[in-house]
Amino acid sequence: MEVDATAETTVPRKRRIMSGMRPTGRLHIGHLVGALTQYVEFARTDETFFEVADLHALTTAYERTGEIRANVRELVLDWLAAGVDPERSTLYVQSHVPQISELHLLLSMIVPLSWLQRVPTFKDQIEQLGGEIATYGFLGYPLMQLCDIAIVRADTVPVGKDQLSHLEFGREVVRRFNHLYGSTLVEPQATLSEFPDVDGTDGRKMHKSYGNTIDLADDEETTTKKVRASVTDPLKIRRHDPGRPEICPIFKLHEIVNAPRVPAIAAECRSGALGCVDCKTECAEAVNIFLRPVRERRAAINPYTIDAILADGADRVRTTASETIADVKSAMKLV
Amino acid sequence: MEVDATAETTVPRKRRIMSGMRPTGRLHIGHLVGALTQYVEFARTDETFFEVADLHALTTAYERTGEIRANVRELVLDWLAAGVDPERSTLYVQSHVPQISELHLLLSMIVPLSWLQRVPTFKDQIEQLGGEIATYGFLGYPLMQLCDIAIVRADTVPVGKDQLSHLEFGREVVRRFNHLYGSTLVEPQATLSEFPDVDGTDGRKMHKSYGNTIDLADDEETTTKKVRASVTDPLKIRRHDPGRPEICPIFKLHEIVNAPRVPAIAAECRSGALGCVDCKTECAEAVNIFLRPVRERRAAINPYTIDAILADGADRVRTTASETIADVKSAMKLV
Repeated sequence: MEVDATAETTVPRKRRIMSGMRPTGRLHIGHLVGALTQYVEFARTDETFFEVADLHALTTAYERTGEIRANVRELVLDWLAAGVDPERSTLYVQSHVPQISELHLLLSMIVPLSWLQRVPTFKDQIEQLGGEIATYGFLGYPLMQLCDIAIVRADTVPVGKDQLSHLEFGREVVRRFNHLYGSTLVEPQATLSEFPDVDGTDGRKMHKSYGNTIDLADDEETTTKKVRASVTDPLKIRRHDPGRPEICPIFKLHEIVNAPRVPAIAAECRSGALGCVDCKTECAEAVNIFLRPVRERRAAINPYTIDAILADGADRVRTTASETIADVKSAMKLV
Repeated sequence: MEVDATAETTVPRKRRIMSGMRPTGRLHIGHLVGALTQYVEFARTDETFFEVADLHALTTAYERTGEIRANVRELVLDWLAAGVDPERSTLYVQSHVPQISELHLLLSMIVPLSWLQRVPTFKDQIEQLGGEIATYGFLGYPLMQLCDIAIVRADTVPVGKDQLSHLEFGREVVRRFNHLYGSTLVEPQATLSEFPDVDGTDGRKMHKSYGNTIDLADDEETTTKKVRASVTDPLKIRRHDPGRPEICPIFKLHEIVNAPRVPAIAAECRSGALGCVDCKTECAEAVNIFLRPVRERRAAINPYTIDAILADGADRVRTTASETIADVKSAMKLV
């Protein structure tokens, strides 16, 4: 076979992916089947930067910062437990990278106030959390998110639908910068994240603030208690009443942790053959089996390694971030 | 005479004074008899930090940053020419101190938007310069000023009356921080600056944007031309018409540069004995004599030393600034 040396070989380009989470507490099974699984998958094929967004946590929690440090460590423990590999991915804390603040101040000069005021989450959150929340930093939150992305020159950002408006704002800021000062910043693309819905034990969406979560760090006994205390179909009162799996949070858990048994469970629930107590017992066992490898990894982690991992991650990010800031200052003719 | 070893000796406490100027162009004689004379005096008795506020210049000039670098150097040349001594004072460029941006982002979290929106200069400037100016960074301008002050822990700030509202805002931010996180930041005191009024050659206040200035860097011929082209009392049309020194910008210049002759000039102008042409010729000579030592110092400065002075200043400020940021992060429980 002849080889044409001039032919282009198509090496798939590695994307540079950036994502972050606020250190607001321990992660739950919803995070695991959503973002964390995606983190691990991205790291297989792409360059990945995962940030513990401690400064973002301040936008809504500046009056109670006492838990942030501990939450940072718990978050990283959860990441590692879920299989995020610090050799493959750069893990770091936002406040360890001063260049993010530098970029934020520089970009603040070219961002019209009206752009920030019209980001839908700004007014929504003020309505939800009250006017107290409306600090200068809270208004600048979407700009901070853009700086997190832009400082490492990420080209791809996994976002949920509710975050698309923030990314669109960030893309506008990048275009404005590049228009004013020449092409310098990378315009990030969204990759839409579609996660399975995970309901909490009270039937609402699983969310820390609702107290309805099954946490990665829970022990098996706690997990079993939580599952047993969960709501089910309120019309299935007696054991043999027919149930409606489609509205039952326990059934949704089965779908995640007990897939081979799902068709049978659905049928037995509908017919009334399966009672909620037995169904929950089976579910609790399946959840514990599902989470066992994650929990074993978590227990095996020497917590002292967290500092080293984060120090190493911060070093790596600061190297990239210094280059970005130097380019930005040069484009703005400050140096 | 008996000496009481327990008696307190009153060593006057050194104040730590911080002031800054935007690099918007060459300084004029109004700056010299105002701020620069004060800079030199402060440095005799106090610890002094003088900042070239290049990031502040971005709040109103982000679309035309091309001149900033050159203006930074001209500004420092003017400072040195006026007698500011880099051995006594720390001279530095704002954008060389990343901790200012860090502090700005951290403090942004505790500053209610309403505090910034009610700073009088915010609405005034939008009315004067148009809605285009209303960027996120422009709104945050008074917070940036506070960060400049707080990062070096200055306790004293020379301000004009028009800047008192900014300082009062900054003091409120410091009090709020110290209330939330414990006493960490220094609440700066104003020392009110009362400078002599210097009129420009068109009779308005001397100001670069009016094109009516006599610059420190002008040569003597240019100075003479500018003084000769200046307006005087418009009712003194012929040589022997009586004049009104109190409304004449040339008379105000005499008051600054030609003090011993002021009573005679006032009398001769009023009586009509002194014509404007002769009066301006004398004034131009006096201005040139007054500025000669400044101009000679300016001409003798090796411009290459500017970089070394600013690098040294930035090093010194960053040392102090790192300590402040470490204390702030620690108080906020981020580290």
